[in-house]
Amino acid sequence: MKIVIAPDSFKGSLSAVEAALAIERGIHKAFSDAETVCMPIGDGGEGTLETLVAATGGKTKTIQVTGPLGDLVEADYGVLGDDKTCVIEMATASGLALVPPGQLDPLKATTYGTGQLIRQALDDGYSSFILAIGGSATNDGGAGMLQALGLKLLDEQGNEIGYGGGELGKVHTVDASEFDSRISASTFLIASDVENPLIGPNGASHVFGPQKGATPELVNILDANLAHWADAVEKTTGIRLHESKGAGAAGGIGGAFQAFFPSEMQRGIDVVIEHTGLHKALEGAQLVITGEGQVDFQTASGKTPMGVAQAAQKQGIPSIILAGSVGRGIDVLYQYGIVSVNSIITRPMTLQEAMENAAGLLEFAAEQNVRSYFHHKISEGKAVL
Amino acid sequence: MKIVIAPDSFKGSLSAVEAALAIERGIHKAFSDAETVCMPIGDGGEGTLETLVAATGGKTKTIQVTGPLGDLVEADYGVLGDDKTCVIEMATASGLALVPPGQLDPLKATTYGTGQLIRQALDDGYSSFILAIGGSATNDGGAGMLQALGLKLLDEQGNEIGYGGGELGKVHTVDASEFDSRISASTFLIASDVENPLIGPNGASHVFGPQKGATPELVNILDANLAHWADAVEKTTGIRLHESKGAGAAGGIGGAFQAFFPSEMQRGIDVVIEHTGLHKALEGAQLVITGEGQVDFQTASGKTPMGVAQAAQKQGIPSIILAGSVGRGIDVLYQYGIVSVNSIITRPMTLQEAMENAAGLLEFAAEQNVRSYFHHKISEGKAVL
Repeated sequence: MKIVIAPDSFKGSLSAVEAALAIERGIHKAFSDAETVCMPIGDGGEGTLETLVAATGGKTKTIQVTGPLGDLVEADYGVLGDDKTCVIEMATASGLALVPPGQLDPLKATTYGTGQLIRQALDDGYSSFILAIGGSATNDGGAGMLQALGLKLLDEQGNEIGYGGGELGKVHTVDASEFDSRISASTFLIASDVENPLIGPNGASHVFGPQKGATPELVNILDANLAHWADAVEKTTGIRLHESKGAGAAGGIGGAFQAFFPSEMQRGIDVVIEHTGLHKALEGAQLVITGEGQVDFQTASGKTPMGVAQAAQKQGIPSIILAGSVGRGIDVLYQYGIVSVNSIITRPMTLQEAMENAAGLLEFAAEQNVRSYFHHKISEGKAVL
Repeated sequence: MKIVIAPDSFKGSLSAVEAALAIERGIHKAFSDAETVCMPIGDGGEGTLETLVAATGGKTKTIQVTGPLGDLVEADYGVLGDDKTCVIEMATASGLALVPPGQLDPLKATTYGTGQLIRQALDDGYSSFILAIGGSATNDGGAGMLQALGLKLLDEQGNEIGYGGGELGKVHTVDASEFDSRISASTFLIASDVENPLIGPNGASHVFGPQKGATPELVNILDANLAHWADAVEKTTGIRLHESKGAGAAGGIGGAFQAFFPSEMQRGIDVVIEHTGLHKALEGAQLVITGEGQVDFQTASGKTPMGVAQAAQKQGIPSIILAGSVGRGIDVLYQYGIVSVNSIITRPMTLQEAMENAAGLLEFAAEQNVRSYFHHKISEGKAVL
């Protein structure tokens, strides 16, 4: 009996690794001889670097870069176990979590640090990149990143513009003469679930601006600035980002990759699954157990449990989901080979109680679920493999 | 695929019948063609009359009797579908629920009404009895019941003693000359889980007196009176109730049956299971789903889910438990063929939320659990029988 354990984190209580270990303990309580493979996983959002590095036995390197608000921060890039593929998680250099509460400022926030991470990795000899771009604090169209890599963004007076989405309206000339030439000799796989265009009512500023601190008034300014920026980019490159699908990802950095990088965008969970080696781990498994803190109908739009279940389904392996909270509409998940969706909560309790006891609850749920699933292996109250 | 659905009630939210129907809906959501048999069940405590009458298609008769505190109350006896077996639930005539809060008085509370129910049933021609004796408000050693059936309990002056455990100390003579002669020609099956002796630190007064309103001082009086009563019974019948196992059940009425009735005591759940026809319903089933509001290590001491599971196990059929709350130590249940113990709670929530939504939660849990259990019947996301 081989069971692959591939949960996401249970936010606020268990990391994906801790969740996997709790599930593994539960399985072994039910069937002490069961073969288990722990493959903690993420959906390509925050934590992707850690997930991929851990899953492949890779490494990380820490450097100082310019943070979203212009001060210095420590940021990592990762290298996968193949020693070739470099993972950059935008949030570590330009993320929301780096900004103290109340200080969010999308007019000023810059992606410069993300560009510095890329430059450092290029300096270190890497040419194959995975970019996880969730959780950014920025709305600068990726301008900061491009500046860090040598693109010159000049105003009417020929002066370099400053940081942030508030400056983009000033761009008069885009000068790519000193843009890092190693970019065009590299590959960039962008992990992102966001398909929004750069501008307009569904664009970066309107949809994601508010969570980065933009008031309705600021949203309009930011959107107009991105439109001006897109015009300038089009004039230089011939590439029209305005309505381009995915250009609005992460404050418009999606568009920067489309216009200036040899890049391809893939759903986050697919990038993670491909690079963790989940497909290989699944070979010969009878069951996959996945899960995360909250599972509901939205899980079907690219969350970890669905991605894992799809990967398993390709090999004809069914999945069981364990979750802290099971919401409405989970029937949509059945089509992905998901057998059942089960809460780990064992009695009426508060969220705090659940979070404090998450490991024990998850272990117990795993035990009961594999007992039910492999009931034909239980005889006279004993597990028989 | 045949599934037997045999839950107890989920106290405070669902009757056993409602629980069974919710589980049935969940099963049919997963496998619309599944054969289901609903067999709501009780553990032989309160609700036994209703359970047995409903399960066998029997009937009830309502009469007026003397309640625990001497006032008139309406009480039922039941007749099973065989039209022969009479079910008497002591609590309907002499129960705690008949006494308004704050008026509990074990010195006065009498089992007289229970005796009247038996007499009426004898008058109506029945001679085969099941007695469910849980939930009594009395501590009178069954004296009231015996008086209603013609036993004379006389004090030193030759006067009949009054009602309640407070009067037992006066008994000087037990005169059985006018005791209903039909009793000895009948059979009495006593459904009770209580094995306590009549008197002493583990006796009726010390263990159950406090929940019937006895202060520590009253407990001692009640215990001394029961000892006096046991002496008097021994003098008349030669039967020694003092330390007799089960004599302390229901305020000592257990002893009254032992001394004056052709009776046998059985665990409540076993009586219920035998008389509901569960064994027959189980034939050919692949799975039993049982459950109740709260399941924990105590469930192993004669609660419904364990009794149901044992009955199923005898036919080699595994059981799954669904519960509102799953407590500690449920591993002890595995030996009874119980595959898994699962809570119906889907997320952190209050007890009130859980109770208000119990039917929907139970339905969802049943659906997910049978999907897992019968996963091999699911193909391409569709249930295939």
